Amino acid sequence: MAKQPDLDDFRVPYFDDGKKKNHFSLDQFDPKAKPFSTGSKDADRARLSEIGMLLDNLQERLHAQRKRRMLLVLQGMDTSGKDGTIRAVFHEVDPLGLRIVPFRAPTPIELAHDFLWRVHLHAPAAGELTIFNRSHYEDLLVPTVQGELDAAAFEQRCRHIRHFEEMLADSGTTIVKCMLHISKDEQRARLQARIDDPLKHWKFDVSDLEARKQWDAYQSAYRDALAATSTEYAPWYVIPADSKTHRNLMIAELLLRTLNALKLEYPPAKESLKGVKVE
Amino acid sequence: MAKQPDLDDFRVPYFDDGKKKNHFSLDQFDPKAKPFSTGSKDADRARLSEIGMLLDNLQERLHAQRKRRMLLVLQGMDTSGKDGTIRAVFHEVDPLGLRIVPFRAPTPIELAHDFLWRVHLHAPAAGELTIFNRSHYEDLLVPTVQGELDAAAFEQRCRHIRHFEEMLADSGTTIVKCMLHISKDEQRARLQARIDDPLKHWKFDVSDLEARKQWDAYQSAYRDALAATSTEYAPWYVIPADSKTHRNLMIAELLLRTLNALKLEYPPAKESLKGVKVE
Repeated sequence: MAKQPDLDDFRVPYFDDGKKKNHFSLDQFDPKAKPFSTGSKDADRARLSEIGMLLDNLQERLHAQRKRRMLLVLQGMDTSGKDGTIRAVFHEVDPLGLRIVPFRAPTPIELAHDFLWRVHLHAPAAGELTIFNRSHYEDLLVPTVQGELDAAAFEQRCRHIRHFEEMLADSGTTIVKCMLHISKDEQRARLQARIDDPLKHWKFDVSDLEARKQWDAYQSAYRDALAATSTEYAPWYVIPADSKTHRNLMIAELLLRTLNALKLEYPPAKESLKGVKVE
Repeated sequence: MAKQPDLDDFRVPYFDDGKKKNHFSLDQFDPKAKPFSTGSKDADRARLSEIGMLLDNLQERLHAQRKRRMLLVLQGMDTSGKDGTIRAVFHEVDPLGLRIVPFRAPTPIELAHDFLWRVHLHAPAAGELTIFNRSHYEDLLVPTVQGELDAAAFEQRCRHIRHFEEMLADSGTTIVKCMLHISKDEQRARLQARIDDPLKHWKFDVSDLEARKQWDAYQSAYRDALAATSTEYAPWYVIPADSKTHRNLMIAELLLRTLNALKLEYPPAKESLKGVKVE
């Protein structure tokens, strides 16, 4: 097995107030690449399962300690594999310790509030590992592509997101954001597979084809959004995701590194319980 | 393998308005019994894993159909295995499709509302499988044991629960309620094990020992609560739970039967997608 690449090579450069990030481009990342793969699918799956068990233990420590909060944000084009990631990466993790929050098109009540209102409601509490399946970034990307946000409004929203995420981080939340990066060809194949299998029609919405027509506009909006909101307290990672096995493995490695860095320990034993006999 | 017993033999008789249920007693059920066990732990685990995969598929259908809602209520004394049940029974089920809601001691804001307010907030939506880890029944049991609810107030609260659950059921929610039934001896052993292992002290609260002193009062409150709230639309089952393997298997069988009875199908294929080629 070759030396593993550095996860940080896939991190979007941090945003610095006032500088435009023209040097970052999604084209730097090949969606077909499998840098974290061992080269063998079986070995990759074995490693994923091994990491899954480590994540299960880390999540228990997080829960036992009830101090830190952990938030994983998953974004990506339709069929990029957000659902599949959750299923595969967290298969070994106790469902008790997971909270998965899907964000769909906002409801009238949600639209009647600021765009972060519905998101804040679901921010992880102490000891929780929360996964956002889509997120507040939808409210940046979709209106941008639909021409409802001009450049100034886009920048304003990005600033609000940075401030919001900084506040969460300062309150003990570790945030990791992943953009599942697939190629346009791979999306075609996956959409076609859903169309060709009547049992999968329920996963399919005609609007998916509309969004595909705006592929370039979405890629451009993603680029700008990632560049403007990747920060030390809430970094973005670009995950080459044409290979599902690779995608799962890379996100699992990223989470493992992130949780390990927190040095989570079980709370100390309670002296008062020493020698207690239950009657 | 002996013929399986009938799950309905473990169902608490339905409540009929106006009749007192003196004939139901928790003593009818031996917490040590393993009626749903095959006799071999390995075979039991294999069966549990098999049911887990079926539950995963049923949950996907529930989700795809987005019509029915499913609510599993878990109640039981401390250490009766509510957390362990969730971990074991739902190991194969996609975490995307599960929502686990723990109910702890009510907060000041929750106490400022009626006792069903916080519960209603977490009722499953269409397509969701929600598990209540403790529930509104805590607000019946705890104040009863603490002498804060007299008989009339107890009956009133039971009536409100029946009406609430009937409304949920009429709105498409399938409700199954399980009381994890352990013996006082088994609880002693489990509490002692937590005390003897410093790494498990975080799971231990001194109030657990206080509640144990009121064992008989809790058993009596459980009996009355189950008798008054087991209904056709929200039945209670008593789960012999001294054996963890048996507990998991029996609850898995119960869920399997319940979900199978819903005859969940994938939504029909969309005619409009026939022959569509993605560009």
